[in-house]
Amino acid sequence: MVFEEKTMKSERIYEGKILNLRVDTVELPDKKYSKREIVEHPGAVAIIAITKDKKLVMVKQYRKAVEDFLWEIPAGKLEVNEEPKETAIRELREETGYEAKKLSYITEFYPSPGFCSEKMYLFLAEDLAEVESGPDSDEFIEKEEMDLDELMKMIDRGQIKDSKTIIGIYTAMRYLREKE
Amino acid sequence: MVFEEKTMKSERIYEGKILNLRVDTVELPDKKYSKREIVEHPGAVAIIAITKDKKLVMVKQYRKAVEDFLWEIPAGKLEVNEEPKETAIRELREETGYEAKKLSYITEFYPSPGFCSEKMYLFLAEDLAEVESGPDSDEFIEKEEMDLDELMKMIDRGQIKDSKTIIGIYTAMRYLREKE
Repeated sequence: MVFEEKTMKSERIYEGKILNLRVDTVELPDKKYSKREIVEHPGAVAIIAITKDKKLVMVKQYRKAVEDFLWEIPAGKLEVNEEPKETAIRELREETGYEAKKLSYITEFYPSPGFCSEKMYLFLAEDLAEVESGPDSDEFIEKEEMDLDELMKMIDRGQIKDSKTIIGIYTAMRYLREKE
Repeated sequence: MVFEEKTMKSERIYEGKILNLRVDTVELPDKKYSKREIVEHPGAVAIIAITKDKKLVMVKQYRKAVEDFLWEIPAGKLEVNEEPKETAIRELREETGYEAKKLSYITEFYPSPGFCSEKMYLFLAEDLAEVESGPDSDEFIEKEEMDLDELMKMIDRGQIKDSKTIIGIYTAMRYLREKE
């Protein structure tokens, strides 16, 4: 049997721009106490954007936290009072300049449930039209439309290193196979 | 063109048991400054453990950060001076009681590269033998061996919510298909 952990104490360590940190003292099923370091995150969306010729729209950016340049699917954090679908529309436009005539919710998952509250909402964007827009002022992004078979090979070669993007590519593969 | 972000200042906010938090001030390509809130994490492993009858060994536990019970593949953090393969052997034994005669490195990825340094190493464990062992003292875990087709349905129904586990299930599916 698996039990909930009851919060006995909660200490706020940091409140920041994109995340907060708190340390909870919890009571375990055996009545012992333990600490849980928890990163609070507003949640985010990621978008599987598929072009007419069945390519996936990818963006490359520098990720300071891992000191690496990563190929990712377009994504971004939820703003205050923003619905995930609005975030998806906004981020797709900001990062790729595309607007999708068809935007469908696919699923949601937790990137790092061991210590972070972040929930990621995954959307599928189709019937893309290029609209005028640039990237965020503090984002420096390269865009490329890539073949799905090539992306699968890039996963196998360890060249796709971002979890939401690996999930997005596998999901896109299944979706396109089902449509065939 | 995508550029690195140069660190101009780095402020340590918190040093904890499983993570640290720091705030870096970085210089962007346009010479403007920006803040990066970065969670430092020691890295972790996750294990695709496949039984003789081609089931996947899953564990269920309460995750305080998301206030939910999640089905996951076995996983755990790297201890100091521990190689990922050693961590995989240790965690598989602690969480499931299994020892693998065959343990292979598959790939590595970042669960949350937008703000967290954590790298996740994915292993495949085969030829499992039950050895005597219990779970960690502060982990309360349920174990179950699940059919891969059923797990794919659980992904589609949103019942598998953990990113490394979704990646592990897709990887296991491909691996077993290739062997057929």
